[in-house]
Amino acid sequence: MKIAVLGTGTVGRSVAGALAHLGHDVVIGTRDPQATLARTEPDAMGTAPFAQWHAAHGEIGIGTFADAAARADVVVNATNGAGSLAALTAAGAENLGGKVLMDIANPLDFSHGFPPSLNPVNTDSLGEQIQRAFPEARVVKTLNTMTASVMVDPASVAGGDHSVFVSGNDADAKEAVAGLLTDLGHRDIIDLGDITTARGAEMILPIWLRVWGALGTGVFNFKVAR
Amino acid sequence: MKIAVLGTGTVGRSVAGALAHLGHDVVIGTRDPQATLARTEPDAMGTAPFAQWHAAHGEIGIGTFADAAARADVVVNATNGAGSLAALTAAGAENLGGKVLMDIANPLDFSHGFPPSLNPVNTDSLGEQIQRAFPEARVVKTLNTMTASVMVDPASVAGGDHSVFVSGNDADAKEAVAGLLTDLGHRDIIDLGDITTARGAEMILPIWLRVWGALGTGVFNFKVAR
Repeated sequence: MKIAVLGTGTVGRSVAGALAHLGHDVVIGTRDPQATLARTEPDAMGTAPFAQWHAAHGEIGIGTFADAAARADVVVNATNGAGSLAALTAAGAENLGGKVLMDIANPLDFSHGFPPSLNPVNTDSLGEQIQRAFPEARVVKTLNTMTASVMVDPASVAGGDHSVFVSGNDADAKEAVAGLLTDLGHRDIIDLGDITTARGAEMILPIWLRVWGALGTGVFNFKVAR
Repeated sequence: MKIAVLGTGTVGRSVAGALAHLGHDVVIGTRDPQATLARTEPDAMGTAPFAQWHAAHGEIGIGTFADAAARADVVVNATNGAGSLAALTAAGAENLGGKVLMDIANPLDFSHGFPPSLNPVNTDSLGEQIQRAFPEARVVKTLNTMTASVMVDPASVAGGDHSVFVSGNDADAKEAVAGLLTDLGHRDIIDLGDITTARGAEMILPIWLRVWGALGTGVFNFKVAR
């Protein structure tokens, strides 16, 4: 499958690497590929320069948001939540129409320090904002409730015995995403309903951040025990 | 232990019954005990009249919010979130000072239908509102992340293999609450930190409501798999 992963941070790299490892044809999209590849310093989060990571993943292409999305069957939004709409606008509505758009970002606002605020909440979500902005895309919110390493290696936590959620309006798109999640090793995929249910999936972030603090690690996941 | 359970709905009844069954001396608090006992019709949620439940639980007393709180060592806020501050005000700051105040309510606003909104969010929580309003009380947010039957019978879900959270500023109060939770059968008690972490515990409600919809039952709970 041709997959565009938008975003060059830890989440984008993890997902792109795992999907390429599964045999998919993956291109990472970024605003300015030359600038991304030219960076030689770790970013503010201490993440190694992209070029260093990319050198070890030669099978993964890199292009502009628009180039990556144009050739893809599935587009993964792995950008920072605060920049997601701008990144997708740069990708272009014409390159997203009809496609499965896996939105794995969280609309966290760190501008007032830790803990971040979540915006929007309650009556809207980033997933819905993206669906409204790109009505022809088939948005599926998923994976945003866990850290990047668990997204792509669920077996690393409790042998994979935990849950992942999907929210979206298009049943076929959710099925396609569930297929990718299954390939990544996820075993308990819970369909919450339409894209408005992304509100709940996003609003889990504040407790996720506090559990991270309590455990001293982000390598955990929620399981819906029943 | 002398325990006041404020609230006569399903949550209050479940918790009062379970704590009495454990041998505690429990009194249920309500605004107007005579009016509560005089009701003969099910409430808007279809819950049986309180007097019918109370007839089967003769060991549990009933009194005003203030009478119940005055004699208690531990006060449980099991009122509707929208009415919690009014109920606790009726209980009286002088009857809450120094006491462990287990807040198990959620600030859900159903006035615009389903799904309800959560208010406050992000920068405040019901747990914090209660702590601010009653600075001498030792508030511990807990149990709000599961349905009433699971609060008091955790073994009914996955043999009890799931998690409960505590948030509060007073370590001794959290230890006392953890003791009660353990007696109820909870095995994985996660201390999220001070009372501001109640924001996270409360913001889990929107996804709780959607998982309920997806599973067709509220008899589930979140487990922090790690």
